[in-house]
Amino acid sequence: MKTYLDCIPCFIRQTVEALRFVTDDPYLQEKIVKKVLVETSQLDLRQSPPHMARRIHEHIRNLTGVKDPYKKIKERFNQAALEMYPELKKMVQSSPDPIEKAVKVSIAGNIIDFGVKADINEKMVEETLECCLQQELPTDTLQKFKESISNADRILFLGDNAGETVFDRILIEEMPMERIVYAVKGGPIINDATLEDAEAAGLTGIVRVIDNGCDAPGTILNLCSSEFLGEFAKADLVIAKGQANYETLSEVKDKEIFFLLKVKCPVIAADIGCNTGEMVVKRIRK
Amino acid sequence: MKTYLDCIPCFIRQTVEALRFVTDDPYLQEKIVKKVLVETSQLDLRQSPPHMARRIHEHIRNLTGVKDPYKKIKERFNQAALEMYPELKKMVQSSPDPIEKAVKVSIAGNIIDFGVKADINEKMVEETLECCLQQELPTDTLQKFKESISNADRILFLGDNAGETVFDRILIEEMPMERIVYAVKGGPIINDATLEDAEAAGLTGIVRVIDNGCDAPGTILNLCSSEFLGEFAKADLVIAKGQANYETLSEVKDKEIFFLLKVKCPVIAADIGCNTGEMVVKRIRK
Repeated sequence: MKTYLDCIPCFIRQTVEALRFVTDDPYLQEKIVKKVLVETSQLDLRQSPPHMARRIHEHIRNLTGVKDPYKKIKERFNQAALEMYPELKKMVQSSPDPIEKAVKVSIAGNIIDFGVKADINEKMVEETLECCLQQELPTDTLQKFKESISNADRILFLGDNAGETVFDRILIEEMPMERIVYAVKGGPIINDATLEDAEAAGLTGIVRVIDNGCDAPGTILNLCSSEFLGEFAKADLVIAKGQANYETLSEVKDKEIFFLLKVKCPVIAADIGCNTGEMVVKRIRK
Repeated sequence: MKTYLDCIPCFIRQTVEALRFVTDDPYLQEKIVKKVLVETSQLDLRQSPPHMARRIHEHIRNLTGVKDPYKKIKERFNQAALEMYPELKKMVQSSPDPIEKAVKVSIAGNIIDFGVKADINEKMVEETLECCLQQELPTDTLQKFKESISNADRILFLGDNAGETVFDRILIEEMPMERIVYAVKGGPIINDATLEDAEAAGLTGIVRVIDNGCDAPGTILNLCSSEFLGEFAKADLVIAKGQANYETLSEVKDKEIFFLLKVKCPVIAADIGCNTGEMVVKRIRK
């Protein structure tokens, strides 16, 4: 997905909000916001929004010296999600359609996205879970999702945020785990999961976990490591969580991808053709 | 009020939204947004937000050649407000406290602010009216407002948006009109009222109407005409409508000012110490 003009105010909002996690110094905050404004004025709108987000957060890290601004946020939501895990697990296992329930749980977890909103709390996660579990998923897409899982020899699962990883684990545990590789980010970017978050979620014990070698949100293929690209190439099926994976992979031509996300932004909603707030399972294929 | 970092994404959002009123050309839109980004990166945050808004809209007008992008919007809301006038007038006149009711009507009219939101419609105006009429105003401030009106020899009423002018007229008709000067903007800026809107609202027939000689939102005193500054200096009482007048005049030291506004932005809400959505009557004095 290209960058729309409406993404630009959102980049600046994200910068301002992110800075508050890192520094109270108003001069440094102003300096970084102004640097981002200049950089945004040189932006190539044909690139997807995560390109710019990556550069913004690189500036924030470099100019403040804080290498992982969202570290505490990530730990907090890993912990919160782990506390919810036993009950969710029980609910999924006792369901007549565990995959369907687990998909909803995994999508609900996608609410933990600090790129969109800086004031997410545990209550919102619980409310989103409740709301998603009550909604219906499109039956035919879900059926196709189940078939693709059954048929795929290699499944690449692209994670999104820390804490959400625990919700993904619930879905992964309903899938053929030996065929799954779970990918996280190669370095800190917003509250996206890195290897330690996958470990905290208990994913490293059940599937192979790799990082994508890149510190951008989503999956910017031309910035990813060759190890990751190898896995991507070999995968018969990709499951891609969250908005940024949609933004960066929606135009991939030669791969079956299921995007699982909670739509939180009107630009992405318009691109997908749905409403903000919706739970989306969107399939693209070769 | 100074410009907060949170105002910056809002400037860019306002640019993107305003451009859609003026041009469908994506290249021109991008060019102007990028120009605004560069300009915003050079912003002096000690200035109030309307300084930047003025420059943004100047760029839009100059680069598109459209001298009054919100002309149709202004005409539409003048018309809509005039249609609501007879009923509102009747309601105010039959009220036990016409000034109180008319203040609420005038503040409700402040919802017609295209600087904040680009999708305002007539239904929202009606809903806001209904909501404001049900809410209470602080009794002591209202009492003081009435006393100040009685005591003032010269009242300068600073209008805000087109259409809102009609709602202001309802308040002005409950006041000593011979002592009132109503001021509008010196040139097109967003959907702020200019002389023709004051005329359309029927204000020119009942009070002296002047323009402030400036095409910024609010009242940036050092950019106003000497005629306006003379009126400002002579006024015993200033009634200032809307957010931008608060932003530009909240730090005036030697004047009694009543700010009447509907708070639509969290930054102004925080500066005033109220919640977004509130109806505010705020007094500052010598």
